[in-house]
Amino acid sequence: MPTRDERVDIEVDGQRLEGTLVTPARLVPGVLFVHGWGGSQQQYLARARVIAALGCVTLAFDLRGHAQTRAQYETVTRADNLRDVLAAYDFLARHRAVDPAAIAVVGSSYGGYLAAILTSLRPVKWLALRVPALYRDSGWEIAKQLLRKEQGLEAYRLTAVGPDDSRALGACHSFVGDVLIVESEHDVIVPRQVVANYREAFSHARSLTYRMIAGADHGLTDNRWQREYTELLVGWMHEKLAAPRGLERTPAAAKASISARAIDPQHGDPPSTAPTTSAGTPN
Amino acid sequence: MPTRDERVDIEVDGQRLEGTLVTPARLVPGVLFVHGWGGSQQQYLARARVIAALGCVTLAFDLRGHAQTRAQYETVTRADNLRDVLAAYDFLARHRAVDPAAIAVVGSSYGGYLAAILTSLRPVKWLALRVPALYRDSGWEIAKQLLRKEQGLEAYRLTAVGPDDSRALGACHSFVGDVLIVESEHDVIVPRQVVANYREAFSHARSLTYRMIAGADHGLTDNRWQREYTELLVGWMHEKLAAPRGLERTPAAAKASISARAIDPQHGDPPSTAPTTSAGTPN
Repeated sequence: MPTRDERVDIEVDGQRLEGTLVTPARLVPGVLFVHGWGGSQQQYLARARVIAALGCVTLAFDLRGHAQTRAQYETVTRADNLRDVLAAYDFLARHRAVDPAAIAVVGSSYGGYLAAILTSLRPVKWLALRVPALYRDSGWEIAKQLLRKEQGLEAYRLTAVGPDDSRALGACHSFVGDVLIVESEHDVIVPRQVVANYREAFSHARSLTYRMIAGADHGLTDNRWQREYTELLVGWMHEKLAAPRGLERTPAAAKASISARAIDPQHGDPPSTAPTTSAGTPN
Repeated sequence: MPTRDERVDIEVDGQRLEGTLVTPARLVPGVLFVHGWGGSQQQYLARARVIAALGCVTLAFDLRGHAQTRAQYETVTRADNLRDVLAAYDFLARHRAVDPAAIAVVGSSYGGYLAAILTSLRPVKWLALRVPALYRDSGWEIAKQLLRKEQGLEAYRLTAVGPDDSRALGACHSFVGDVLIVESEHDVIVPRQVVANYREAFSHARSLTYRMIAGADHGLTDNRWQREYTELLVGWMHEKLAAPRGLERTPAAAKASISARAIDPQHGDPPSTAPTTSAGTPN
């Protein structure tokens, strides 16, 4: 374990003694939380603390257009928010206790979409997406708030989309780390087809764990669903952190070992009939 | 594991995002090093780093009268230096990463004497004494440098002294933690009788490990002896740190389990003939 020296002064009887404090400088994993559209870091703080208690440094933050910068809600773009995510990632990866080769990113809805793209721009070892949203690649610089109408998202999200036709899904296709995908059974904002698009894109992932929260809506408005998501996320992180570090397999070997068990066949295929969608809170 | 929240600002595009960094706040043992008369923190820095790498926060420091405050060498008293040790202990115990119930103190010669007394004033869990020196209780406020002559230390150190007749040995008698005592085979400053006095005083210690460095002089002037001491100390710390925390036995139960094995009978009894002493560096 590496250590770090620190020169210190110890005061006694009005004098100063010189000393050297040596602390263990063990690097730990970092976990970045990216909230959804209309959310804030507050939604993730309790989970951030539970996961920090597993021995990680965690960071939750407010995307531009939210919380303190709510005034930009109508104008902020995906380009802006992706730079936010990059800045937060870099902040976390530079933390002196964080192992930059062991970063997890956890995103919900719009935050999941940004997290997926992030993996093409920065090293990410573990990626947890809850109800990840999907947008057309066009209009990258127009206000995010306009996308639902401009891009005809309700229809788009009922369409099978592959990695070649989406920046986010393309990033997923290239991702070789461990993946957790959590779906809500009754999600009318991010319908099942979108989750299926994501799941199918992760064909090079070292492992894929897919779970559905029964009865849940997009925003997990019932506390039981919130708890279930927390348990899923913490259990998955715990399992991944317990795995031997530095014993990474090659993507090819890993691909072959994706657990079929982790994919529940009952919910694993796109539905034969499209679920009802409604306006709801655009995500 | 407890965690700690920290509000952070993340800069992006000339704006600031608010975030919350959560870090694991696991408390680790603290280890304090007290050098001997005429020494300095430098002698302990390498060992302080090795032991920090075991997962401790360690602190080495310069006693008054040494290094930067060498000008006080002729006038500094035991009372002064004991306050130094207390100040350093308190500095370490207050460190945010340190478990104040898990402090080790490591002292050599005069530093071992001060460390022994410290255990009567502050909680100490592990105590490692290398060739601990002994002084008469009288003259507490006179210059340390005068003690050898004033107290007739050469003769005093050939005398069997018990806990009732010495502040330092009395502290050892009351100590209920784990003890390491390291003797030098050819020590003319701290003769065998002094080490025997210390060893016999620790009748309530949870465990007692006694070792002699064959052929060594008081100051470990050969690098081989230095290495042997480092190995002994690090091995002992490693063993103690590996023991289950929070599973402390009562002093009575502990007393019965002091390992006879750890006391080498060949060197365990006071010698039948007193070893030769010489002036050397007074300690």
